[in-house]
Amino acid sequence: MFSTETTVRVRYAETDRMNYVYYGNYASYFEVARVEALRSIGMSYKRIEEEGFLLPVYEYNVKYFKPAFYDDVLLIKTVVPVLPSVRIVFDYEIFNEAAEKISEARTTLVFMSNETNKPCKAPEELLAKLRKYF
Amino acid sequence: MFSTETTVRVRYAETDRMNYVYYGNYASYFEVARVEALRSIGMSYKRIEEEGFLLPVYEYNVKYFKPAFYDDVLLIKTVVPVLPSVRIVFDYEIFNEAAEKISEARTTLVFMSNETNKPCKAPEELLAKLRKYF
Amino acid sequence: MFSTETTVRVRYAETDRMNYVYYGNYASYFEVARVEALRSIGMSYKRIEEEGFLLPVYEYNVKYFKPAFYDDVLLIKTVVPVLPSVRIVFDYEIFNEAAEKISEARTTLVFMSNETNKPCKAPEELLAKLRKYF
Amino acid sequence: MFSTETTVRVRYAETDRMNYVYYGNYASYFEVARVEALRSIGMSYKRIEEEGFLLPVYEYNVKYFKPAFYDDVLLIKTVVPVLPSVRIVFDYEIFNEAAEKISEARTTLVFMSNETNKPCKAPEELLAKLRKYF
Repeated sequence: MFSTETTVRVRYAETDRMNYVYYGNYASYFEVARVEALRSIGMSYKRIEEEGFLLPVYEYNVKYFKPAFYDDVLLIKTVVPVLPSVRIVFDYEIFNEAAEKISEARTTLVFMSNETNKPCKAPEELLAKLRKYF
Repeated sequence: MFSTETTVRVRYAETDRMNYVYYGNYASYFEVARVEALRSIGMSYKRIEEEGFLLPVYEYNVKYFKPAFYDDVLLIKTVVPVLPSVRIVFDYEIFNEAAEKISEARTTLVFMSNETNKPCKAPEELLAKLRKYF
Repeated sequence: MFSTETTVRVRYAETDRMNYVYYGNYASYFEVARVEALRSIGMSYKRIEEEGFLLPVYEYNVKYFKPAFYDDVLLIKTVVPVLPSVRIVFDYEIFNEAAEKISEARTTLVFMSNETNKPCKAPEELLAKLRKYF
Repeated sequence: MFSTETTVRVRYAETDRMNYVYYGNYASYFEVARVEALRSIGMSYKRIEEEGFLLPVYEYNVKYFKPAFYDDVLLIKTVVPVLPSVRIVFDYEIFNEAAEKISEARTTLVFMSNETNKPCKAPEELLAKLRKYF
C-alpha cells in the first residue's frame, strides 16, 4: 500500500450558494491529490501522458459527510491500495482544519494506449516505483 | 418510479486536454438533470430552498463507459426509484448522439432544515406530486 | 453587423457563496453565445476546429452591472461588429428575466492554423456566410 | 503601490481540448492571487465578508499573450495600484516557467455593505494596512 498527503485551499470559485464547496468540485481536489501522490514518488502525470498513455477515470464514488467551506485548508490522504495493472485505484479521505473527516472517495482510472486507444498495462516505470510499497 | 429525460450540450469549458469532458463536470450535468426532473412535475428546486430546505449531496457514484466530446448533445434519463423521505435518490443514464450509453450514476441528497441545520423530511408538496408515480 | 440571441439557465454549480453567479463563470456563457451565433448561420465551431483552425481568446473585457442568480434564464445578445479577418470580435449583452442589462462584454479571438501554429485568415466559408451582414 | 507574488499549478480540470488553460479559468487564478495578496498583509478575505462586506467584481479585463498548459507552475504578480476607497483595483501579470509573460489583467471590485446592499467604503482595517504602501 502506498499513501501520501496533500493539501488544497478552497477557492471562492469552488463554493456554491449553499455556502458549501459544490459537490462537483471535489473531483478536481482528488485529481490534485492523485497527481501529487505520483509526483511524490518521482512520477509526473504529464510525462505519463507524453509517453503515450491516456488515463481516463472509469469509476468515481464519493461520500460527503460534512461540508467544506470557503478558504478551508483541506488535508487529503491518498492511498493506492493495490499494485496497478490495467487499472489504478486511488482511495481518498478529506479532513478539515478541525481534523474531522468530511469526505471519502475512490477513483478507478484505466491506462489506455494513445496509439491503439485500447486499455493497456501501466507504464513499467510507474510499476517499478510502486512495487516496493506492496 | 418517476422518470424524465433532459438534454445538455457539451461546452468547450467542460472539455479537458484529453479531448473528453472532464470527469468532474458530469456532476453539473446530473444537477441539471435532477432540477429539470423536478421542474417537469411543477417543483422548482430554487423554491424548495426558499421554503427553508437545503439539499446537499450525500453520496455520488458514477461510471464512465465512453467519453463525451465537445458539442455533443447528451440525453440524460433520470429516475427517482423510491419515494423520498429524508433522502432523495436520483439515478441517471447518459446517452450520446449515437444512442450509446456512455455513463450511469446515482446521487443521494439529504433534505436539511435551513433553521435547525439538521436532516428533515422532504417537503409535503414534493411528496404529494411524486406519490402518484409509486 | 451580425447579431443573434441565445439563452442560458444558471446552474447551481455556477453560483458562489455570495449567492451570485461567480464572475469567472460568465466566460462559458459568452462561449455558448458565440458558438450559437455561429451555429445560427450554419457554422459549427467544432467543424472549424476540425478543418485545421484553433480559435483562442486573445482579449476579454467584461462589466458586471448587477448579479445573476441561481435558476435565472439569461438572455444574451451577441453581435459581430466587424467582418472578421485574422481576428473575430464578439460583443455581448446579458439581460435578466426583468429585462435589466446585467452585464456587457467583448471577446477578441484569433484564428490560428493548427499546422503552423501561427495566426491566419478566417476560413473562407465563415467569411462568405458573414459578408451579407456587413 | 502594494505588490505581491503567488503561484498556482495548472490542474487538468482547468485545461480544455485545445490543450490550453480555458480562458474562463484564469478568473479563479486571479481570485487566488488577490486573496493571497490580502493575506500577505494580514487581511483575510473571508473575515472581510464575515464583518459585513460583500466584494463583487465590477469589471474584469484580461489579455492572453501565450497559452498556459497543464501542470505549469504559474507566477502571478499582483499590484494594488491605488489606495482603495469604495473600489479596489488589482492588476495582475502571469509568467510561465520560462519567465515569459503570458497574461495580464485588471479586476475592479466594489465594497458593498451586506446590510444595505449598497456600495460602501473599504473596511478601515484594510485601509490602515495598505496606507503605508502609498
